[in-house]
Amino acid sequence: MKIAIDAMGGDHAPEKIVLGALEAVQQYKDLEIVLVGDETEINKHMDSTDRITIIHTSEKITSDDEPVRAVRRKKDASMVLAAQEVKQGRADACISAGNTGALMTTGLLNVGRIKGIDRPALSPTLPTLDGKGFVLLDVGSNMDAKPEHLLQYALMGTVYSQQVRNIDRPRVGLLNVGTEEGKGNELSKRAYEMLQQSEQIHFVGNVEARDLLDGIADVVVCDGFSGNLVLKTIEGTAMSIFAMLKEQLMSSVKSKLAAAVLKPQFKALKSKLDYSEYGGAALFGLKAPVIKAHGSSDETAVLNAIRQARHMVEHDMVSIIREKATQHEGDE
Amino acid sequence: MKIAIDAMGGDHAPEKIVLGALEAVQQYKDLEIVLVGDETEINKHMDSTDRITIIHTSEKITSDDEPVRAVRRKKDASMVLAAQEVKQGRADACISAGNTGALMTTGLLNVGRIKGIDRPALSPTLPTLDGKGFVLLDVGSNMDAKPEHLLQYALMGTVYSQQVRNIDRPRVGLLNVGTEEGKGNELSKRAYEMLQQSEQIHFVGNVEARDLLDGIADVVVCDGFSGNLVLKTIEGTAMSIFAMLKEQLMSSVKSKLAAAVLKPQFKALKSKLDYSEYGGAALFGLKAPVIKAHGSSDETAVLNAIRQARHMVEHDMVSIIREKATQHEGDE
Repeated sequence: MKIAIDAMGGDHAPEKIVLGALEAVQQYKDLEIVLVGDETEINKHMDSTDRITIIHTSEKITSDDEPVRAVRRKKDASMVLAAQEVKQGRADACISAGNTGALMTTGLLNVGRIKGIDRPALSPTLPTLDGKGFVLLDVGSNMDAKPEHLLQYALMGTVYSQQVRNIDRPRVGLLNVGTEEGKGNELSKRAYEMLQQSEQIHFVGNVEARDLLDGIADVVVCDGFSGNLVLKTIEGTAMSIFAMLKEQLMSSVKSKLAAAVLKPQFKALKSKLDYSEYGGAALFGLKAPVIKAHGSSDETAVLNAIRQARHMVEHDMVSIIREKATQHEGDE
Repeated sequence: MKIAIDAMGGDHAPEKIVLGALEAVQQYKDLEIVLVGDETEINKHMDSTDRITIIHTSEKITSDDEPVRAVRRKKDASMVLAAQEVKQGRADACISAGNTGALMTTGLLNVGRIKGIDRPALSPTLPTLDGKGFVLLDVGSNMDAKPEHLLQYALMGTVYSQQVRNIDRPRVGLLNVGTEEGKGNELSKRAYEMLQQSEQIHFVGNVEARDLLDGIADVVVCDGFSGNLVLKTIEGTAMSIFAMLKEQLMSSVKSKLAAAVLKPQFKALKSKLDYSEYGGAALFGLKAPVIKAHGSSDETAVLNAIRQARHMVEHDMVSIIREKATQHEGDE
């Protein structure tokens, strides 16, 4: 198995990307990695390794680049060339911690959609209190989704949860403003009906945003605008609470001392909320696994994203989705 | 000034509602309150008071009632009669901690819309790190909003921030998935253009959900579906983090002791996040102030909601909104 990695994407590239790749080939003896990026920079962080090759390019897409334009113009960017490796059949999956919009664009243009899936979905796995996590999709690939897109997301989330997360019968929830049937906007009302009628998924009805971290469902579907809002609200609220907590704890000598004692507890809490533990956000619906690792990915996050891509290839998620999506089309 | 209060709405009714009302008439010597609900129950919590009267009714709307049906059928429900007081001109504003959907319905049916405002907006003030807070609207009154609704929300949020919150030139942000112009779904793209062109508001562009608690804007506008998701995600994330924190802190004797020392700090943090401090969620766009107090409102939350209604009446928010909305209609 071979995975192509954009070595130049993310806040800690190329160092942490290279280190994560080195760790991965240590762990998986069947794994080959091709790192795409500046050869000199990459080689600063590794000696020649058996199963890691480099494709040199000096061009890269930055986080400030306008995604579509960047992918069209920077044809030799590390991210684009990594996707090309997949397109040409020389790699089984690709990973980048760089510009999310650009990765979605190059995924769509170069890797291409699975037949039967109208829109790919950006699909992170988020933490829950019980440590099991849930897949939220879409969080930003498709801003104005149609009800049938949400049904396709449900299907893809189900396959992923079964194959990669080992959940036998994943519970699929529809993100909504109330739990009762008939709640929500036009999209959610129509999607509810379609989800309820599908025999390919285990639909558990509407789920509310406030119950997400309690593990109310294994797969939660929504339009990309809503999903992105929810994802960023979780991040923002957690960060704000930790900032406030820190401020409070530093407010006196006594509280500082008590806080020092609690350091391991605070650390455990933070790690529970750390969703890079579950890998990156997979782009479901493309002809090969494409993973968006978090922009601030460290070595472990990169390793987790590689592990996730490896699982997806190993369990042949793409073929299963293609089969189910065609089957589902035939149903209609 | 007279405020009608649904004495039977919310988790702690009628006790906490009555206690909040008693406290309010103590504080404001010009204030009269009419409590609507079960007279015997209400009288358990107060002696006869000069400026508090009771309208007796045994009917009430519960949180499980389907809003529209409940308002139509339960014509003598405490919430409906409170709104009737406003409609008949016998009260200047009304408050309920009961069923949100029912309050929106009775507000629309009995109090009625301001000319020039197409849709009322449910508008809570949420906490920020700096303690100033921001108004988020709409959080659930209008699920499928049009761009012009968002412009009207911006106008109403601006008037409220100026008159009631004493912010000279409130910064209005559009809730979106990125800060750059051109981001988002069809609604946000079109709303961006309209907001940018309006001379009645101080538009600061798109704001991201992750920056809300940092105080990125004084007024944040969005459709009711998105606003409700964000509101409930903030609530749910905060609750989950506190639950995890508690679990971590109770994990050993040592951490329990340290946590005991930090109790005041944790309490201060929780109170910082407590949005009942800012009053309830006002329903902007109706012919009189209608306030939804939080369902779990205690005495202080009820007092804060009364104070908020009082400010809105005193500063004649309704007339100012009517004037500006008409002016704005003339602009087009």
